[in-house]
Amino acid sequence: MRRQGWAERTRSIQAFHVMSVLARAKALESQGHDVIHMEIGEPDFASPAPIVQAGRAALANGHTGYTPALGLPALREAIAASYGERYGVDLDPGRVVVTPGGSAALLLIASLLVDPGQAVLMADPSYPCNRNFLGLLGAHARMIPTGPQSAYQLTPSLIESHWDEHCSMVLAASPSNPTGTLLDRQQLQAMADTTRRLGGHLVVDEIYHGLTYDCQASSVLEVADDAFVLNSFSKYFGMTGWRLGWLIAPPDAIPELEKLAQNLYICAPHMAQLAALAAFEEETRAICDERRLAFQARRDFLLPALRDLGFAIPVTPQGAFYLYADIRKFSDDGSALCRQLLERQHLAITPGLDFGDYRQHEHVRFAYTASLDRLAQAVDRLDRELR
Amino acid sequence: MRRQGWAERTRSIQAFHVMSVLARAKALESQGHDVIHMEIGEPDFASPAPIVQAGRAALANGHTGYTPALGLPALREAIAASYGERYGVDLDPGRVVVTPGGSAALLLIASLLVDPGQAVLMADPSYPCNRNFLGLLGAHARMIPTGPQSAYQLTPSLIESHWDEHCSMVLAASPSNPTGTLLDRQQLQAMADTTRRLGGHLVVDEIYHGLTYDCQASSVLEVADDAFVLNSFSKYFGMTGWRLGWLIAPPDAIPELEKLAQNLYICAPHMAQLAALAAFEEETRAICDERRLAFQARRDFLLPALRDLGFAIPVTPQGAFYLYADIRKFSDDGSALCRQLLERQHLAITPGLDFGDYRQHEHVRFAYTASLDRLAQAVDRLDRELR
Repeated sequence: MRRQGWAERTRSIQAFHVMSVLARAKALESQGHDVIHMEIGEPDFASPAPIVQAGRAALANGHTGYTPALGLPALREAIAASYGERYGVDLDPGRVVVTPGGSAALLLIASLLVDPGQAVLMADPSYPCNRNFLGLLGAHARMIPTGPQSAYQLTPSLIESHWDEHCSMVLAASPSNPTGTLLDRQQLQAMADTTRRLGGHLVVDEIYHGLTYDCQASSVLEVADDAFVLNSFSKYFGMTGWRLGWLIAPPDAIPELEKLAQNLYICAPHMAQLAALAAFEEETRAICDERRLAFQARRDFLLPALRDLGFAIPVTPQGAFYLYADIRKFSDDGSALCRQLLERQHLAITPGLDFGDYRQHEHVRFAYTASLDRLAQAVDRLDRELR
Repeated sequence: MRRQGWAERTRSIQAFHVMSVLARAKALESQGHDVIHMEIGEPDFASPAPIVQAGRAALANGHTGYTPALGLPALREAIAASYGERYGVDLDPGRVVVTPGGSAALLLIASLLVDPGQAVLMADPSYPCNRNFLGLLGAHARMIPTGPQSAYQLTPSLIESHWDEHCSMVLAASPSNPTGTLLDRQQLQAMADTTRRLGGHLVVDEIYHGLTYDCQASSVLEVADDAFVLNSFSKYFGMTGWRLGWLIAPPDAIPELEKLAQNLYICAPHMAQLAALAAFEEETRAICDERRLAFQARRDFLLPALRDLGFAIPVTPQGAFYLYADIRKFSDDGSALCRQLLERQHLAITPGLDFGDYRQHEHVRFAYTASLDRLAQAVDRLDRELR
């Protein structure tokens, strides 16, 4: 009998275009070319020293075994306390679930909230993994075209007009990847009210919280106690390689999430959890805030420089480390433009196609995860190619 | 409108009974009772010193960022080389996928091989997470009753008689959790041949390899190049809390698995991958083999002692650190017996119900993850309760 092929779902999961950009960039580097990397969503800083030190101490003290599935109680308490300080939200530590990365947090939440055949509303553009997670569960993303008029975010009226009986959840992100735009407290409140009235669950990706400029991000928990929050130690705290995130859920969801966590991954890495306790120390915060200012300086340099070159960035991004740029002045094919910049100028950026379907050929994403000097060189290379 | 409830799949995922045993054991301990823990599948040794040292060095050297989704090339090479040494199998490192724990390895494989509505054949009894993974994907486990006559393992004829057009995969485990029994090379070969002829995929959980007594375990890769293998650094290498495993797959599966890994978890923890490189050093192997001998001594003590008390363990377990015991001499309700032993003797073991449905009321699992002294005390307590 002929061997069965791969499962159907593998066909709906596209490899990220950024991965082929990265592979080609590395090939060019191995030929001796000086490639400027602005394609990857990873801070260009190692983890802050107090976090590394706490991780080393955890290992030296033999903390190499499993932890409870929901996470170490001390870390759940520290995370909960941070909501009081940052947002004025009094949060029960019992509502915090520590996860192996923000990825696992989303997998848990989607497993809890979305049945096969159901749909999740999200903005087009948005972070590409989110769509693919849903495919795994037999569900799908209903990507709603958004543009500058709503800062590339969903709105109550967009939710209302795209919601039907097949929908179970709305997924928003503030700050958004790829656009860096935020939802303010009033917008979050209106979104929560609308989603609740429609009978759905609101999930907000707050993974880039901390990395905001000119403003403080609001958490949806300030205005909606029944919303779900995704977060991570990867971005603001610079802990990508440790694989550690968390989620906040309503109390009655916790026993279900605990069962899912036990089955899906047992627990998050133990030493990472102990290291993350140091994330809330004064010394670490000072380091992280210094880095935030470095990102802000980069945005403040790169944003006007790209606009000056002719990229359209109609909404000023206030968070994350991305600029999502309309390239129509130069091209109607973002992927071709990315290839051209990589091959001729050795500048690596991400084509819009990774983030959805709506007008993605007309967009690219710049990650300002490189030093100011390198960004200045990148602008020179763009100028050389596009003027 | 009424808020939607939790997804249907949450209803099919049972919490593990062992978790309520553990919770009650901790409550008894907090009241000052001396509980002997034989319920948890975690070695009672911390990670070997060279592994811990390598992890600390990785952190000191700033290796805190993402790695490639398939794992660090050096670790994939080291794992591949170990197949040459252990099993005489010449394995291309490109077929090795490093994962965040054995859990993620199974999630990747099941996502690749099983469509919604399809079934996976596995032995009853078997490791409980496996069933629940399939529920997540809209598929299900077809649990095949097994007993001492096949050493609680599937056989070609069991596979053949339970296979139909809804099946896509056979999942075997050697050594098995909970029974500690192995499949030898001939059995693996026959199982691979049968599964291939039926058009299915064979996946073998080899997570307890290294922890075998009286014999060396064979890998299915010795006899079937097209099989999938699950493995982990948790058990033999004592790295549970680092969350690190791996899988071996046929070459044409790797690009699909890479896409799934990128989407599902980005990468395994970086410092854990660097620490695991030390697992293959001579010094670490010496430590691990010493521990193996300690487990063997425990088995050699506990197995005859339990048989002597009247537990039926008809097949001598040759691997892992579990004894799966028939309790009919004492009770027809394993869960009640577990409660009784915990409440009256402060001895924590796992009810058979965690491992399937077939005659599970008549079984319990003992984990010999406690010292010989403690095991002797456990036997005394059993004697006091059951004689």
